[in-house]
Amino acid sequence: MRIGILGYGNLGRGVEAAIRQNPDMELVAVFTRRPPESLHIMTEGVPVLSLETAKEMQDKIDVMILCGGSATDLPTQTPDFVKYFNVIDSFDTHAKIPEHFVNVDAAARAGGKVGIISVGWDPGMFSLNRLYGGAILPNGTDYTFWGKGVSQGHSDAVRRIEGVKDARQYTIPVPAAVDAVRNGENPELTTRQKHTRECFVVAEPGADLARIEREIKTMPNYFADYDTTVHFITEEEMKQDHSGLPHGGMVIRSGKTGMNLEHNHIIEYKITLDSNPEFTASVLVAYARAAYRMSQDGQSGCKTVFDVPPAYLSPLSGEELRKNLL
Amino acid sequence: MRIGILGYGNLGRGVEAAIRQNPDMELVAVFTRRPPESLHIMTEGVPVLSLETAKEMQDKIDVMILCGGSATDLPTQTPDFVKYFNVIDSFDTHAKIPEHFVNVDAAARAGGKVGIISVGWDPGMFSLNRLYGGAILPNGTDYTFWGKGVSQGHSDAVRRIEGVKDARQYTIPVPAAVDAVRNGENPELTTRQKHTRECFVVAEPGADLARIEREIKTMPNYFADYDTTVHFITEEEMKQDHSGLPHGGMVIRSGKTGMNLEHNHIIEYKITLDSNPEFTASVLVAYARAAYRMSQDGQSGCKTVFDVPPAYLSPLSGEELRKNLL
Repeated sequence: MRIGILGYGNLGRGVEAAIRQNPDMELVAVFTRRPPESLHIMTEGVPVLSLETAKEMQDKIDVMILCGGSATDLPTQTPDFVKYFNVIDSFDTHAKIPEHFVNVDAAARAGGKVGIISVGWDPGMFSLNRLYGGAILPNGTDYTFWGKGVSQGHSDAVRRIEGVKDARQYTIPVPAAVDAVRNGENPELTTRQKHTRECFVVAEPGADLARIEREIKTMPNYFADYDTTVHFITEEEMKQDHSGLPHGGMVIRSGKTGMNLEHNHIIEYKITLDSNPEFTASVLVAYARAAYRMSQDGQSGCKTVFDVPPAYLSPLSGEELRKNLL
Repeated sequence: MRIGILGYGNLGRGVEAAIRQNPDMELVAVFTRRPPESLHIMTEGVPVLSLETAKEMQDKIDVMILCGGSATDLPTQTPDFVKYFNVIDSFDTHAKIPEHFVNVDAAARAGGKVGIISVGWDPGMFSLNRLYGGAILPNGTDYTFWGKGVSQGHSDAVRRIEGVKDARQYTIPVPAAVDAVRNGENPELTTRQKHTRECFVVAEPGADLARIEREIKTMPNYFADYDTTVHFITEEEMKQDHSGLPHGGMVIRSGKTGMNLEHNHIIEYKITLDSNPEFTASVLVAYARAAYRMSQDGQSGCKTVFDVPPAYLSPLSGEELRKNLL
């Protein structure tokens, strides 16, 4: 399977590393908007090419993995490139997924290609677990907790405050809420009861720390509805203790069965990640295999993780899967 | 969707209860080997019929859920009935799944029907999580732990010992082993290091308790490779404290990513069940929906959970799934 990477940030680098772990895949090229000669990738012998030349490679690439952002890149890139390639993206603006799906579906059908959108862990593996849990235990409730982990959107929001030089924001599930859900208590939880937020901030010299803290804690949408803790630290501490991008979380389905709904069941899917972008990239690469196979089957159009038979993700044959994993 | 239940033990009763939670399904009949008039089911107005008459109902049932045992019922029933009906079974003799698959596949293709085998939680949801985990983190290790829960096979084995009137056996994961796996230590674990076994035994009056305990602890395959605890209790205690069929367990994938495999990731799927048969039945019913849809699509042959697109399990439309669960 010949893979192209379009966009070479944290996610693109994660895809590059993940391809090395899948011997049935080969990285053909990395495409970038930057001057190609300015970009040095980790895989020897693989060219870095200008994004404009990508479409000329149509016959040399089986699946293009789109590693741009959901805000401005993917809404146009995915419908554009799916006319020429089978593609995977990690579009994660939940509210706009239906619209993105419609756009990608029309373009993919026109090009006779497969586009799998919103691949990763949420949307992605968490979505799958919400679906499986709800289908198995229809009389029940879903709970999704995120963290402990770095939220890049919230970190950026803090960085935009005047006097802030650098910032890192951790989203943390409230242990009492998680425990209540695991105990089958089916609690109704407010936003504040589910997660807390912890910020580590490097301030500019002489900045008004009290004002920065107040601006963080009262910021609408991002922090006002949460209990937030703010720590001011040095640049050295930031570099030493907060340079990684760990994340994680869990989807819990709590449901009842029995003629009188007398039995409780808890299904919990939990992930603990040292590197959020590398894990997301690993999911993208597994779904690239599926996109290739669905295309080989003669399918086309936009798909999501809900549409992909699990066996298509694995390099093993049906016989091997049944013998070793079933 | 019109559903038939074939076999009315714990699993069949669980399917009957689960159908009530799925408004798009209707129970048409329960089929039994026993004299039909001897059997009283919980759903009013639904007939109990002799197993011999089942095939006459071919046009009245969309999916037949086979609730017999894996030892002697399903190896013949599934290939037999899949000639006439779309079927679901919970065949769980792992070593014989490839052979069962081949038999069911040939019969299903001959009949133009869909048969989904080995549905439940292990095989079933645990298998799916082994597949997803391995596809996402190819550089990693799988761990499956069972329990805490009642193992019916081990309970039966204890009951066969002379002087034992009743028995219940719990399989229990070793906490230190689970912790080591969750910490990403990738331990190599022997059978003894992964699970302990705890037996509650009601002895016949005057039985030699020391001999019973010795026979349990040294029983090959079942107990000899485990640390086993034996408690002798009264019939009243058995009835009061051990009448349920709780179970559960977890599948953990521990894997590494990054150019130098410098990042660890843990994926954990954990279930905690008040009723093992009712949960298994709930999985069967969700896959009955999928079998019906695959059949409507014109598919035929033997399938497993690996082959079923997740969306087929849910009563929601593609649009609803993308809007609400993705």
